[in-house]
Amino acid sequence: MDTQSYMHGVGRRARAAARVIATADAATRNRALAEMARAIERDASRLIEANARDLAEARKQRLDAAMIDRLTLTEKIVQATADGLRQIAALPDPVGEIIHLKERPTGIKVGQMRVPLGVVGIIYESRPNVTADAAGLCVKSGNAAILRGGSEAIHSNQAIAGCVHAGLKAAGLPEDTVQVIETTDRAAVGELITMQDYVDVIVPRGGKGLIERLMRESRIPMIKHLHGVCHVYIDDRADLEKAIRIADNAKTQRLGTCNTMETLLVARGVAGKVLPPLCKVYAEKGIELRGDEQARKIVAGMKPATEEDWYTEYLDAILSVRVVRDLDEAIEHIATYGSQHTDAIVTEDVERARRFLRAVDSSSVMVNASTRFADGYEYGLGAEIGISTDKLHARGPVGLEGLTSLKWVVFGDGQIRQ
Amino acid sequence: MDTQSYMHGVGRRARAAARVIATADAATRNRALAEMARAIERDASRLIEANARDLAEARKQRLDAAMIDRLTLTEKIVQATADGLRQIAALPDPVGEIIHLKERPTGIKVGQMRVPLGVVGIIYESRPNVTADAAGLCVKSGNAAILRGGSEAIHSNQAIAGCVHAGLKAAGLPEDTVQVIETTDRAAVGELITMQDYVDVIVPRGGKGLIERLMRESRIPMIKHLHGVCHVYIDDRADLEKAIRIADNAKTQRLGTCNTMETLLVARGVAGKVLPPLCKVYAEKGIELRGDEQARKIVAGMKPATEEDWYTEYLDAILSVRVVRDLDEAIEHIATYGSQHTDAIVTEDVERARRFLRAVDSSSVMVNASTRFADGYEYGLGAEIGISTDKLHARGPVGLEGLTSLKWVVFGDGQIRQ
Repeated sequence: MDTQSYMHGVGRRARAAARVIATADAATRNRALAEMARAIERDASRLIEANARDLAEARKQRLDAAMIDRLTLTEKIVQATADGLRQIAALPDPVGEIIHLKERPTGIKVGQMRVPLGVVGIIYESRPNVTADAAGLCVKSGNAAILRGGSEAIHSNQAIAGCVHAGLKAAGLPEDTVQVIETTDRAAVGELITMQDYVDVIVPRGGKGLIERLMRESRIPMIKHLHGVCHVYIDDRADLEKAIRIADNAKTQRLGTCNTMETLLVARGVAGKVLPPLCKVYAEKGIELRGDEQARKIVAGMKPATEEDWYTEYLDAILSVRVVRDLDEAIEHIATYGSQHTDAIVTEDVERARRFLRAVDSSSVMVNASTRFADGYEYGLGAEIGISTDKLHARGPVGLEGLTSLKWVVFGDGQIRQ
Repeated sequence: MDTQSYMHGVGRRARAAARVIATADAATRNRALAEMARAIERDASRLIEANARDLAEARKQRLDAAMIDRLTLTEKIVQATADGLRQIAALPDPVGEIIHLKERPTGIKVGQMRVPLGVVGIIYESRPNVTADAAGLCVKSGNAAILRGGSEAIHSNQAIAGCVHAGLKAAGLPEDTVQVIETTDRAAVGELITMQDYVDVIVPRGGKGLIERLMRESRIPMIKHLHGVCHVYIDDRADLEKAIRIADNAKTQRLGTCNTMETLLVARGVAGKVLPPLCKVYAEKGIELRGDEQARKIVAGMKPATEEDWYTEYLDAILSVRVVRDLDEAIEHIATYGSQHTDAIVTEDVERARRFLRAVDSSSVMVNASTRFADGYEYGLGAEIGISTDKLHARGPVGLEGLTSLKWVVFGDGQIRQ
């Protein structure tokens, strides 16, 4: 069968299953998750065997070490995947609730009901445990899912799909609620992101290259994460001890995450005091510093930062450093070079904190805290389908609620419009 | 200047103005709206003169009567436009509020702040008063706006733009906060819907043809309204007096609106009782009926409905009528042929009402009320930027809140991630 007909078949079945799962009660959806977890534990050795086939092929293809690391399923990861499904099952039910119900002068009662989005298409790379996570999040939120993992993980993903289907079946839900694309043909992605009749939202999880390609080609709304050029601004009214602790943690706690600081901004008034001890910490941790002229006058040995540096998400042991005149210049810098992901101010001045919060147009804006907190678990969402750098629908860490929307419900007693 | 450079200039200026209006306080934004209203009242005769130029050209181009009607500015419409701005000014401020602030185990406090979207591009046809309405809604919600009206209304729109700018200036806000495209070159729309760096959301207001074109070409998220194939389902447990009143009103109160019923579904058990008196009402009001076989057996003189009829938004004095077995078949019909706009059930059975509410995936779902209530004013939104048939971000009537999003705010006291 050609990829187009195959994908349209997947879409049609997903749409039909979406109608069933949308009205399944919470107990049934939670039972499916618990049964998926049980199947994963039971089949652990089978999953690891399937994964071994992917790993053998990956080594043959000479994929890089980081990719092989992401691809690898260990017993620990398999157990964590099963536990993750049980944690999702334990979260409050995100659908069905009616909010803001109020009576209007006409006598009708108007409110909003939280409902599933319908069919969610998820496109991801390497990490096979995403197959179970994504299935769990979609089923919990009453959605059907079409999952397209990386071709390098095809055997692992199919094995996990078997467990997901076993869970759905045990709960009496259609197996088509979660479909894992069976072809590695890249054209399948092109179909998935243009099947507007069958897919309500695309959630891509992958590198910037994948996202940019999907942005060009998708005809379906996406909840997506583009990149994170995150800033910490140390104000001249900062507590310098807090400033050093936060700027250290924001950069060095983990280098490769999207909420890691990439550019440090320091107010001129405190640069001479805070940069020397802070840069000593960075030096000890092997962070390469690239500074503007003023920063380089204060700390010796910094490379000069180019215009390009201010735009760059290093995801690496590199930090660009700029001395700014004041809060306004910091806000201006973030507006010009930032990616509207996560930015923090360190200050003891309430008025400045308030101004930074309002003026910085990022999905997370922080006062006296490390940018590394921008995370669904840290924010208390319980689970995270991704981090959105979009402005519509969902910004920042997206939990189950991001997989739902609100429809209007009206209760009358025969009212008509005059 | 070519249209592309012109539009990019507009975009750049809008982005700069958006940063100013985003942090302007509510009093300043409301003052701008009040001053716009004053300028419109003061310039009423100038607006009507400019409109006369558009009308003369429209007659020369032999535009149809409905279009000329929409294009016409009367003294009454001008006054209503000014009053509308004052009503928007009087609404609660939609931005700045912080919700769901809670302390996490790490000690950080996490909440969400309602913020403007940024730059809103609005594309609309004919009706020049939309220029003032849209400007008012965007300024109230702290957004910059780029407005592209129909070329047939260019002089009217420019004249209203003058009043909008006078209002912004009087309040000390940049005039670029609201820009009305000055060229009638159609390529300007193509630029507007692809300037991702400058425009955050497109709100198209127009016919299905315009929307379908924009859906194909836009690279920017849209809040849009496609079409409304709305249903009323009369259940066999309906109060027939209510059923007739609602089905009459939903079809005949206004024929050309998107929330008007286009297909009536009647449960087999009551069809013989409810259809004859109801169809008599329709006949008296000149509604053409197109029925399925069963309906035509009950009421003489109905034309046969074709498969195409069930998909059709007539926006006219035509109604398709189908007799269904029961609630399940009604839900099935709506899922197959509906447009996810507004659908209503008439029933006295609470369990069936509940099932209809959950299972029908439309932006408004109603029990015992006319579909004609699906409207921002009837729902108490105070103002309406449009009605969305999308599922992400905003569904159904969209008020000021739809022009905002929520960003995360984090308050710490030096916390770092472990």
